[in-house]
Amino acid sequence: MRNLKITLAYDGTRFVGWQRQAEGESIQGLLEDALARLEGGAVTVHGAGRTDAGVHALGQVASARVGFTHDSATIVRSLNAQLPEDIRITDVTDAPDTFHARFSARTKTYRYRLRTGDISDPFDRAYVWHVGSRLNLDAMCTAAAAFVGTHDFAAFQSTGTETRDTVRTIERSQLLVDPPFATYEVIGTGFLRHMVRAIVGTLVEIGRGWRPVSELPALFENGRRADAGATAPARGLFLVRVDYDE
Amino acid sequence: MRNLKITLAYDGTRFVGWQRQAEGESIQGLLEDALARLEGGAVTVHGAGRTDAGVHALGQVASARVGFTHDSATIVRSLNAQLPEDIRITDVTDAPDTFHARFSARTKTYRYRLRTGDISDPFDRAYVWHVGSRLNLDAMCTAAAAFVGTHDFAAFQSTGTETRDTVRTIERSQLLVDPPFATYEVIGTGFLRHMVRAIVGTLVEIGRGWRPVSELPALFENGRRADAGATAPARGLFLVRVDYDE
Repeated sequence: MRNLKITLAYDGTRFVGWQRQAEGESIQGLLEDALARLEGGAVTVHGAGRTDAGVHALGQVASARVGFTHDSATIVRSLNAQLPEDIRITDVTDAPDTFHARFSARTKTYRYRLRTGDISDPFDRAYVWHVGSRLNLDAMCTAAAAFVGTHDFAAFQSTGTETRDTVRTIERSQLLVDPPFATYEVIGTGFLRHMVRAIVGTLVEIGRGWRPVSELPALFENGRRADAGATAPARGLFLVRVDYDE
Repeated sequence: MRNLKITLAYDGTRFVGWQRQAEGESIQGLLEDALARLEGGAVTVHGAGRTDAGVHALGQVASARVGFTHDSATIVRSLNAQLPEDIRITDVTDAPDTFHARFSARTKTYRYRLRTGDISDPFDRAYVWHVGSRLNLDAMCTAAAAFVGTHDFAAFQSTGTETRDTVRTIERSQLLVDPPFATYEVIGTGFLRHMVRAIVGTLVEIGRGWRPVSELPALFENGRRADAGATAPARGLFLVRVDYDE
């Protein structure tokens, strides 16, 4: 069996999310179905990040063990011919047998796009959260930097999730201001469910003056989801890239 | 009565086009309905360019006579609150009584976005025509420039249209290559129905080597629609701006 490393981009708007579910179209499901047709049998695909409904990917990575012998270019072409236009395979390579898209990942990079200003853009509405004009962007930049390091992110995990170990390490966390956009970029070794969106929701509430930057340490300390900001909408979030050790 | 000059942007994907029709949502219809609620009575809106279904606008201009006395900022806010997110009013000003969005227009600027390369972009699929890799872009640039001037564009008008006078003047016509994009920009005093899309379809057929640049004069001469290229898809076309004499 070969072990394929598949890189793909998708517009998450109309999907139930990465993960195959009983109802609705998932990216995993469509990719597995397309690979199964090449394989002539079932194929299981593992994704590096299990993006939620409405979340997009510029560089999601998946791995899959297959028996077929087509070259990479042929696989890319065949998968893209089968998949809908809102999912595009950008690269397929042969990976070592031990490679697993999720467990081998060293870091993942996410980006969340905010739009400021009074008037939204009709062409961008599925890819940005329009947050209006009255934001203290300086406070948001300061707050964004405070997430770097190893913290208990229990307050930034969706309620109902059962992950016990909620300590995660963030290598980079910054807000890049380029009016009318403000883009939050975060690189970490692992993320809890809804964690990036909860961080962004908290940053926006800080920007609106609803909460001070100074309360962040207490949020890491007490770990209550209700004390952090609301979860930002899915549509502004992009899984940008997944990095692996060579 | 005041005479309003309204500037707006829209994603044309899900509309039947600018013009109000018996079935389906039109931009004109939604704008007239929103103005009518401010006016407390029917309002007629004239658009500078009657864009077709699926065609977008970055700077469409409309005019409307109304009696209400709200200031511009209030009108912009009120209309945007009523309109769906894929239509955004960007500006409202008071115009002279003689102003008419279509008849007063001096020039209109259209842009058509082509994407080259093997793999399309899932985020751009509603706003570009993906034409693949094997295009002679030099030939297309040369051909684009040949449209400048006053010509009989009968071969570039949709069949079934009854416009008798098919002579139009193009002030600018060029293909801007910025890989993976190639953007056709055209400025003219008037355009026939489907004219820009027929020009782009012809340019792409020239780029594919299906027809020589040298046949363009004959197309202006004989005026048969069937001899020019196929009409390019609506989704790549944008009405960029409308210019008026001061």
